[in-house]
Amino acid sequence: MDAKFDLKQYMTQLGVQARKASRELMKATTNQKNSALLAIADTIESSKTTLLAENQKDLDAGAKKGLDAALLDRLALDDERIASMAEGVRQIVALPDPIGEINDLKYMPSGIQVGQMRVPLGVIGIIYESRPNVTIDAAALCLKSGNAAILRGGSEAAYSNQALASCIAEGLKAAKLSTASVQVVETTDRQAVGELITMPDYVDVIVPRGGKGLIERVSADASVPVIKHLHGVCHVYIDGKADQDKAISVAFNAKTQRYGTCNTMETLLVDKVIAAEILPKLIRMYEKEGVEIRGCAQTQAIVANINSATDEDWDTEYLAPILSIKTLDGLDEAIDHIHQHSSGHTESIITEDLTSTRRFMAEVDSSSVMVNTSTRFADGFEYGLGAEIGISTDKIHARGPVGLHGLTSQKYVVFGDGHIRG
Amino acid sequence: MDAKFDLKQYMTQLGVQARKASRELMKATTNQKNSALLAIADTIESSKTTLLAENQKDLDAGAKKGLDAALLDRLALDDERIASMAEGVRQIVALPDPIGEINDLKYMPSGIQVGQMRVPLGVIGIIYESRPNVTIDAAALCLKSGNAAILRGGSEAAYSNQALASCIAEGLKAAKLSTASVQVVETTDRQAVGELITMPDYVDVIVPRGGKGLIERVSADASVPVIKHLHGVCHVYIDGKADQDKAISVAFNAKTQRYGTCNTMETLLVDKVIAAEILPKLIRMYEKEGVEIRGCAQTQAIVANINSATDEDWDTEYLAPILSIKTLDGLDEAIDHIHQHSSGHTESIITEDLTSTRRFMAEVDSSSVMVNTSTRFADGFEYGLGAEIGISTDKIHARGPVGLHGLTSQKYVVFGDGHIRG
Repeated sequence: MDAKFDLKQYMTQLGVQARKASRELMKATTNQKNSALLAIADTIESSKTTLLAENQKDLDAGAKKGLDAALLDRLALDDERIASMAEGVRQIVALPDPIGEINDLKYMPSGIQVGQMRVPLGVIGIIYESRPNVTIDAAALCLKSGNAAILRGGSEAAYSNQALASCIAEGLKAAKLSTASVQVVETTDRQAVGELITMPDYVDVIVPRGGKGLIERVSADASVPVIKHLHGVCHVYIDGKADQDKAISVAFNAKTQRYGTCNTMETLLVDKVIAAEILPKLIRMYEKEGVEIRGCAQTQAIVANINSATDEDWDTEYLAPILSIKTLDGLDEAIDHIHQHSSGHTESIITEDLTSTRRFMAEVDSSSVMVNTSTRFADGFEYGLGAEIGISTDKIHARGPVGLHGLTSQKYVVFGDGHIRG
Repeated sequence: MDAKFDLKQYMTQLGVQARKASRELMKATTNQKNSALLAIADTIESSKTTLLAENQKDLDAGAKKGLDAALLDRLALDDERIASMAEGVRQIVALPDPIGEINDLKYMPSGIQVGQMRVPLGVIGIIYESRPNVTIDAAALCLKSGNAAILRGGSEAAYSNQALASCIAEGLKAAKLSTASVQVVETTDRQAVGELITMPDYVDVIVPRGGKGLIERVSADASVPVIKHLHGVCHVYIDGKADQDKAISVAFNAKTQRYGTCNTMETLLVDKVIAAEILPKLIRMYEKEGVEIRGCAQTQAIVANINSATDEDWDTEYLAPILSIKTLDGLDEAIDHIHQHSSGHTESIITEDLTSTRRFMAEVDSSSVMVNTSTRFADGFEYGLGAEIGISTDKIHARGPVGLHGLTSQKYVVFGDGHIRG
């Protein structure tokens, strides 16, 4: 790209092409979309050598730039990760096509018949960071749901993403779909994001996937609706009437099964009537696992030698082996604490009491509300969505794990026989 | 309000109070919400004298300011309008409570049981213009759907709206619900709108109701999600295989049944193979009704002495007895024209052909897509929603007529028995 490269014009052109492709995709049959997906999966596998070579260029550039080991690991492709990308696409082929389904078709008193038809959103812009597999996941989900996609990956994965873009283009061509159905932004100019999120004529929704910084920036500046997944400060509340074995097992799993995920518990709330029995055992288990405990004063009074939780702890997503614990006075205080400090992602109550369960379910305002279940289950695969493009902590449109349905809209369809309004 | 009145502080306080009230409303039983609504309806009727007196102050001020007759008419209350407001509230009492319904509860392979529970959005900000009845409609819909509301009406209806706010407060008190459940902004300072739409901590969604100018301004400046209803450039397409009687009847009704509504047809598209038979009759009927016709060249070649449609006509919402007519070459051209010029509100095809119907239904991307039905049916009451707060032309969240469900969200609920993730 030369000095005269006009970013705005380039992005607008992507938008115009995407809008046009989206009209074709809206009409594409399930077979056609599945053929494209299968061809993409095959091409990914047959392009392994190229993909690894291009990925190596990103890794070399990253090492030169001094990216840390964790980031380089996320960036790296290998045989297994390539096979898993292809497998992910084939799993999406196996999902039912949501487009065109008509729900609740009913006759009205006037004689007209009214229902709702599921349709694509149109054009989806996806902004993500280093993992190259997002290029394939996002493309496959958008394609299956009949949406055109404009993908903007991180600059550190530029070579890998372009190589994957070629695989996608091959698959689209094989199924006689426009290659503009999935476009990967070629420039690494950061302002491309600024353009993408302010083209409401060409982009119907933006899905940012990445760290909190990226998502906050995109949300603040976008003039296009954003399906956002901000962060997860998830709670488990052990009620006074909890089964202790379940409580210990779930609370341990919710923290330690994986530390870096948004559905990991960050704060454990414990009813004071049960705290003295449960906390010593549980904290010993956490400490054995290397989890740092930060407790409130009541918790410290029960278990010696643990750090104090500060006010900041209650609002922190650690994404690390750290857990804050608060001992409190029953369900009302637990719900209050959650209302004040939760990010609205996932909360779980451990109890055998039906009334407490019903209240917790009704009154906790988060995207997933659970009983006797580890928060780690808050996930599109575990919820049977087949795949997910993210987990929305918004209340508008899609909430919780977002699968194919979250990338669709419903329009009203009305059947009449010459009906006029009187 | 004195010189030291701090608008930002005032609006923030409304927000804090609304957020608090919304937590109570989330827990309110159906009976409690219905009791409040019935008490509001009763209070409206028993406050007729006060309502008329306060309304008269608005009318006097409006006349002094030189408001036109149409605006003064929209502003005016009389016995019938007051009765109809109360009746509207009672109709909302009769609707089923959407809150708490759990859908699609299913066991997953892991053994957890996953479903979706319908819950309130939280706090809804509604910004509207002169009609005082919106104060009551909006309050009743928000209340029934468990949402707290902050209402901001037009300054020309300030006395009427405050009088109605008192009726609402009475009803809330009678049902022991917080009067902060519905708050009517007291200041007429225009900047109150600017504050209301940029308080994401306290307001979950904004619904602007009014002219295009208001809605565009709100959408451009809001940092809170907006459920917007921009405008309606609605089309009827008379296909070559239309039944002529149905075509004439529907096309006439869609334009002439009411001129000023967003679901009124503004452009008629006619397949050229049927135009010569249909258009002379139909245009005569329109002209007899006083509708000005603006035709394309092909239409003018069929019917003499009609005005020319300019490029601008195809994008204009007349809201008046004016109709643009385009004669074109079949379904593909019709769909193309609609994609280019429709506002995404409502389009109807008149045909007896199944394949054309299926294509029109699938390919036209509007909030309502109809066959053999007058566009005038695009309405929450006609669709069986019981009431509507507006018609959304967005694709995100609520699309088409927005009733109680559009003011709700769905969260995931997960039931386990100590399930942990492996």
